[in-house]
Amino acid sequence: MTPAEANVPPSLRTHVRRVAHRGQYDRVTLHALLDEAYVCHVAFTDEHGVHCIPTACWREGDYLYIHGSNGSRMLKLAASGAQVCVTVTHLDGLVLARSAFNHSMNYRSAVIYGSFETVPDDHKAGALEVFLEGIAPGRSQEVRAGNAKELAATTVLRIALAEAACKTRTGGPKDDEEDMGLAVWAGVLPMSLSPLAPIVDEAAAGIETPEYVREWREGGAD
Amino acid sequence: MTPAEANVPPSLRTHVRRVAHRGQYDRVTLHALLDEAYVCHVAFTDEHGVHCIPTACWREGDYLYIHGSNGSRMLKLAASGAQVCVTVTHLDGLVLARSAFNHSMNYRSAVIYGSFETVPDDHKAGALEVFLEGIAPGRSQEVRAGNAKELAATTVLRIALAEAACKTRTGGPKDDEEDMGLAVWAGVLPMSLSPLAPIVDEAAAGIETPEYVREWREGGAD
Repeated sequence: MTPAEANVPPSLRTHVRRVAHRGQYDRVTLHALLDEAYVCHVAFTDEHGVHCIPTACWREGDYLYIHGSNGSRMLKLAASGAQVCVTVTHLDGLVLARSAFNHSMNYRSAVIYGSFETVPDDHKAGALEVFLEGIAPGRSQEVRAGNAKELAATTVLRIALAEAACKTRTGGPKDDEEDMGLAVWAGVLPMSLSPLAPIVDEAAAGIETPEYVREWREGGAD
Repeated sequence: MTPAEANVPPSLRTHVRRVAHRGQYDRVTLHALLDEAYVCHVAFTDEHGVHCIPTACWREGDYLYIHGSNGSRMLKLAASGAQVCVTVTHLDGLVLARSAFNHSMNYRSAVIYGSFETVPDDHKAGALEVFLEGIAPGRSQEVRAGNAKELAATTVLRIALAEAACKTRTGGPKDDEEDMGLAVWAGVLPMSLSPLAPIVDEAAAGIETPEYVREWREGGAD
């Protein structure tokens, strides 16, 4: 069994210590958590101090990808091989316990340490297609593809998932035994990042609705 | 007009440069954005490098608060006055343009620079009550309050909102003029962090449902 398959921390700094049983180090948990994410937070330092910047992300294989304009300060710094910490967090619910102290939240988070590498020019279009297809299957065949100028203006970076850890909390409140008799409502107020009804651009009103938009609508709460 | 009321960056590092018109520096935008958040990401550095850790947060006045166990590495470091960057992000939708290049996301994010200060012992209980009341109005009068031991085990920190910037994107796709004739669906797939049906703890099944739980249910999609 390789470290990636085993449930052991790959390094000192990925070892979850507070509430250690919430730590998970297997690749299945990590991949599932990343695949549900649209956005990560990238922490890095420069001459102005430490920064924490949200940006779109997607996974392919054992890498997490980000992209943006060549002019982005974050991308320029990340492309230089600077050490970063990339975090993905899903908030799943508020946990209401019988005592103020035992209140908690349900969440799933992944923290990745390392440095980004630049995706070479000849792989950029392919990497961006994986991103778009992950959001809207089939759409990369419908839209105007990126031209040479657009691709040249775009930086695509990826970070290996070699040094990563997940931390999750699930389930109901964990109350102290002596509080169980209190007449206080206890339970979970769950939440999820949920689709709302699609908004078609006015100028595209006559165009057939693609399947991925219909499916989004069906998942929508509006 | 003070800097906090004006729409000007309070410092060099809070100046939004990429797509500069998305930068907002007024306090009304910042407060609204923070008040909608349950979780922030805190970036900091220690001897192991740079870290990015999600944690619960709440605002009171011109401060953002976090809390946790005294044993937390992040809280110990943050309490030492280390420079941090705290980021709150709301993802509002996927923006589908007619060209691959012009795809985007709608979001609202706030970035706060500075350092945390420790909330003194005699203000801890009050600060935590503001947090709980913000989530569940009235609940602080229902639950067992924190005892001396629990409060002593808890660190509460706050960071001033003096050096902060918001960056937001709203609205539909911004396509190139020459792409507007393409027969491609274009628009927004909106999303929001939405309440799902509350899950009552088995042992609390007979207890009257408080108003904040009923209201959560009414907002729920399940």
